[in-house]
Amino acid sequence: MGAASTVEGDRLPKQDRSRATRQRLLEAAVACLAEHGWAGSTVSVVAERAGVSRGAAQHHFPTREDLFTAAVEYVAEERSLALRALFPQGAQAGDRRAVVAALVDLYTGPLFRAALHLWVAACDEEQLRPRVTELEARVGRETHRIAVELLAADESRPGVRETVQGLMDMARGLGLANLLTDDRARREPVVAQWARLLDAALG
Amino acid sequence: MGAASTVEGDRLPKQDRSRATRQRLLEAAVACLAEHGWAGSTVSVVAERAGVSRGAAQHHFPTREDLFTAAVEYVAEERSLALRALFPQGAQAGDRRAVVAALVDLYTGPLFRAALHLWVAACDEEQLRPRVTELEARVGRETHRIAVELLAADESRPGVRETVQGLMDMARGLGLANLLTDDRARREPVVAQWARLLDAALG
Repeated sequence: MGAASTVEGDRLPKQDRSRATRQRLLEAAVACLAEHGWAGSTVSVVAERAGVSRGAAQHHFPTREDLFTAAVEYVAEERSLALRALFPQGAQAGDRRAVVAALVDLYTGPLFRAALHLWVAACDEEQLRPRVTELEARVGRETHRIAVELLAADESRPGVRETVQGLMDMARGLGLANLLTDDRARREPVVAQWARLLDAALG
Repeated sequence: MGAASTVEGDRLPKQDRSRATRQRLLEAAVACLAEHGWAGSTVSVVAERAGVSRGAAQHHFPTREDLFTAAVEYVAEERSLALRALFPQGAQAGDRRAVVAALVDLYTGPLFRAALHLWVAACDEEQLRPRVTELEARVGRETHRIAVELLAADESRPGVRETVQGLMDMARGLGLANLLTDDRARREPVVAQWARLLDAALG
């Protein structure tokens, strides 16, 4: 990574270099959190993984809390964009089961694992708790918005809002079940069945 | 607690005293895990909370992993018994929504919080991981069995098994959403709506 950043240093204007450094730090922070948990994730470890000096890392993110909450938010935004990109014309009527599968996929990868480590750490750390609570609410609202849009769910109908919320809760629970073991073989028929039920419920 | 254990010491036969000590340790371990997380939960902290000497604690549970996996298992069993006791005649047709609410309640209290801390710690600790994986599978099977029974779900019908599994995944996700904030006001209408969907799906 050191060599790569030197090459970038030769080619890119200063503002772009700074943005690229920031992005590398955010991606390294999420990977680090997913792999080593909160206890194993410090600014130094992330800076080294990103091939950035500790000083440069602290210039971008003065505290450990700044770095890791920004990282989870950044990756959540990237995943939201990727989810919308799967259905560039908006989802069609026949896409609903594919949409449910894509929504569940948001919770079974490294981002969810990283976010989970951050949530659990926030239970016991006063400095982290209010920031993670606020972040979780914001990311949750945005994910709900995308789900409603891609499922073409009419929230003016009674029960529809709660149906979509329950689906996202189920997705989170499926993510948790995937934490220690590869749960795919159990998960896929569950998702297929609830996609059928949901399709009927949303009309 | 020291005074209480002396009184017990005067009154109870040795085997009962030992069982009472074990039980106090298990309950203290779950409370400790729920409040302070894995990093803050050691055998010494639990022994002190339970009013038991460290030596006595180690006699019952030679390692930290022994103590905390036994604690989560013990409390999960107690909760299963309490759940069955809510519907002593078995659940009736009209009880289904109450059953769903009771199943979700399994995941919103201190036991779930403790189990979550243990799961997340097990991601990064090789000594803990296989034991927690095995424990999670065992407790999950037992909870599924109770859910099927109380919901009077006929698993020989296609999709019914997956429907119940998805419900338990949703319950776990609702537990996670309750971790940092009191999520009850959002949760209750979601549970009511999914209980309706489930009732229709199970027939």
